[in-house]
Amino acid sequence: MIEVKQYIQEIGRKARDASREVARSRTAAKDEALQLMAAAIARDTEGLLAANALDVTKAQKEGLDEALIDRLTLTTKSIKGMVEGLRQIADLPDPIGEIDGLHYRPSGIQVGRMRVPLGVVGIIYEARPNVTADAAGLCLKAGNAAILRGGSEAIHSNKAIAACVREGLRLSGLPEAAVQVIETTDRAAVGYLVKMSEFVDVIVPRGGKGLIERIAQEARVPVIKHLHGVCHVYIDAFADIDKGIRIADNAKTQRYGTCNTMETLLVHEAIANEVLKKLATLYLAKGVELRGDKRARAVVPAMIEATEEDWTTEYLAPILSVRIVDSLDAAIDHINNYGSHHTDAIVTRDIVHAQRFLAEVDSSSVMVNASTRFADGFEYGLGAEIGISTDKIHARGPVGLEGLTSQKYIVLGDGHIRG
Amino acid sequence: MIEVKQYIQEIGRKARDASREVARSRTAAKDEALQLMAAAIARDTEGLLAANALDVTKAQKEGLDEALIDRLTLTTKSIKGMVEGLRQIADLPDPIGEIDGLHYRPSGIQVGRMRVPLGVVGIIYEARPNVTADAAGLCLKAGNAAILRGGSEAIHSNKAIAACVREGLRLSGLPEAAVQVIETTDRAAVGYLVKMSEFVDVIVPRGGKGLIERIAQEARVPVIKHLHGVCHVYIDAFADIDKGIRIADNAKTQRYGTCNTMETLLVHEAIANEVLKKLATLYLAKGVELRGDKRARAVVPAMIEATEEDWTTEYLAPILSVRIVDSLDAAIDHINNYGSHHTDAIVTRDIVHAQRFLAEVDSSSVMVNASTRFADGFEYGLGAEIGISTDKIHARGPVGLEGLTSQKYIVLGDGHIRG
Repeated sequence: MIEVKQYIQEIGRKARDASREVARSRTAAKDEALQLMAAAIARDTEGLLAANALDVTKAQKEGLDEALIDRLTLTTKSIKGMVEGLRQIADLPDPIGEIDGLHYRPSGIQVGRMRVPLGVVGIIYEARPNVTADAAGLCLKAGNAAILRGGSEAIHSNKAIAACVREGLRLSGLPEAAVQVIETTDRAAVGYLVKMSEFVDVIVPRGGKGLIERIAQEARVPVIKHLHGVCHVYIDAFADIDKGIRIADNAKTQRYGTCNTMETLLVHEAIANEVLKKLATLYLAKGVELRGDKRARAVVPAMIEATEEDWTTEYLAPILSVRIVDSLDAAIDHINNYGSHHTDAIVTRDIVHAQRFLAEVDSSSVMVNASTRFADGFEYGLGAEIGISTDKIHARGPVGLEGLTSQKYIVLGDGHIRG
Repeated sequence: MIEVKQYIQEIGRKARDASREVARSRTAAKDEALQLMAAAIARDTEGLLAANALDVTKAQKEGLDEALIDRLTLTTKSIKGMVEGLRQIADLPDPIGEIDGLHYRPSGIQVGRMRVPLGVVGIIYEARPNVTADAAGLCLKAGNAAILRGGSEAIHSNKAIAACVREGLRLSGLPEAAVQVIETTDRAAVGYLVKMSEFVDVIVPRGGKGLIERIAQEARVPVIKHLHGVCHVYIDAFADIDKGIRIADNAKTQRYGTCNTMETLLVHEAIANEVLKKLATLYLAKGVELRGDKRARAVVPAMIEATEEDWTTEYLAPILSVRIVDSLDAAIDHINNYGSHHTDAIVTRDIVHAQRFLAEVDSSSVMVNASTRFADGFEYGLGAEIGISTDKIHARGPVGLEGLTSQKYIVLGDGHIRG
């Protein structure tokens, strides 16, 4: 235990030192490092596949579940995806040093804000080796040092990717400690990492709700949390019915396993009969299980009965809960009370309803006449994302480069003193 | 204990409900409430002074220290200050609902960000009754519900102010639970408050370093921390000497007890002889005790020897530590290693040095040719401040209305679905 603690502290100390060097690195040096990392990964595809095979074989031998093994497995295509991802990050504008709103005050000083790195970012994630490259790239571009702790099932894959990342850093003259992968699988390492506030500025956990809640519970360092997505589509009385159906279909069935997938459909009673009958045909044809409240079941008898628990459940599966509501207020109340403050959409032509929904639904993304599936860093134009924050402070919604930075005040004077 | 817990949970529940109502309140209603609170306080000046006298008498009887009694004591003038403060907050533009950067994406959706309240803000502070009015006003204007917990020494004063605040809320039709003052002096109340993440979105502690560290340690709710200010002025080799002297004098002696007061002076060796001799005369005439490193003492023998501890100490008193450095790099390293990341200034005419200092000093406010005393919400034009954050995430530096808000993404489409 003491050894693990010392090991993590040593990583922290090195990260803090490296972070200062990365913070003042030129854009060109960071972009070169990203391109060289990408090149190293592309060149070493065979080596990465071999390292990954060790992890996959072990996981299979241990009988780990199929979804985990699926996320764990690298392919030539997914490695190409990592390479592309790093190149895209290199092409993004550098957020660091940007000065906003510099203006004169009556005292004669100029005051503005400068965008700066956070410092040291700790990323804790599950057995998805591609996160190692993505997270390294995003943290570096935002001028931070990164400490990465991936799931122990992916340890060989992560070490192999880390070697490519280090090569890129070294060849571009940046400190290798700018990205460090924790190479012990001892779980105590996470406990030390999230408490090391002298060396770590923020922790970003990526993974299931359980992982994130555990980390938030233990952490002494601020955590950017991405909890679960219980997302809603509300089809209003004044909706264009065809658009409502199209959006509700897409929000549920385009992909079942993502956090921005709709889990509960709310329909206004005035149009419920037509909308639910049409949608039920669509959903049932695609094998979606429907769980309705009493009124919804009266319209679509094929629905099974929804329990109180259904309204707060993120299914991540072809299951949908359905409720008929009497009013916009009832819809907003349902979403604020049962939802997870992730992403919610209204379908309506009534601008007052749209405005109220936008203002009053307390979620990180709120949409009018669009599918919840759009809640995504790429779709929003952030270029990349490290996660979707359901927190209210700091970053909210998809977190890209900007969420990995901070702003400090700058003041310019000419000998000004306070009177 | 169980009763205190229930009491705090009840306050939390009411605050959550009220926060939804406040969040959707019109600007005019919030401003009216602020004006009515101000009017109630002005009208009840005698009553507030009487309530405050109870607190002050008790504090004197218990032999509490003079500085505390000074902060605790209300006067006609300080009550007028509260009234003015609330009116100023009413006059500030409403930050809520502001939409930034709405733009079309290639998919056809429009994406932007809307400024929204945080929800429920818990403010924990020491025996300064005026914070009760300030904090209530700022939280309300930013669309939040507030839970206020002031020092137990000020309990009668706080209750009296709270009554005026409630009157303003009631008369303007806003929920009275929009601002609740915790009326028990049981210390356990704070412990429950900072862990109640279902009802509280952020905690802002205002007070000494000890209070804030204790709260950050215990909290499960995110905390906007205002730790201490170990602020520096660095007089560069390329400084205008007169401006350097003027700034160093002002930064130390304009007020000794504020967090943006300079505690350590760094001087480049090339100009140290002239600068330190002139400044020493000034400081010693004002009764400032000087503590220098070896080289500084060689120039000014009246300095006593600075210990390692001096470099990290916030004196809040007429004491200054002084160090001679060989280079800009040495100055930046000293500040980043020993400072508290609050406010630091360089005096120089060299633009490259100024740019490097701005970029590389890792503090919430970084200044060129201006006194550290400018680090203040009013001086920065925020209109008011609830504190100065030394955190890197969310709000950094002086925290005004914007720091009490968040931004959510909004998406507008016309039946758009993801392909």
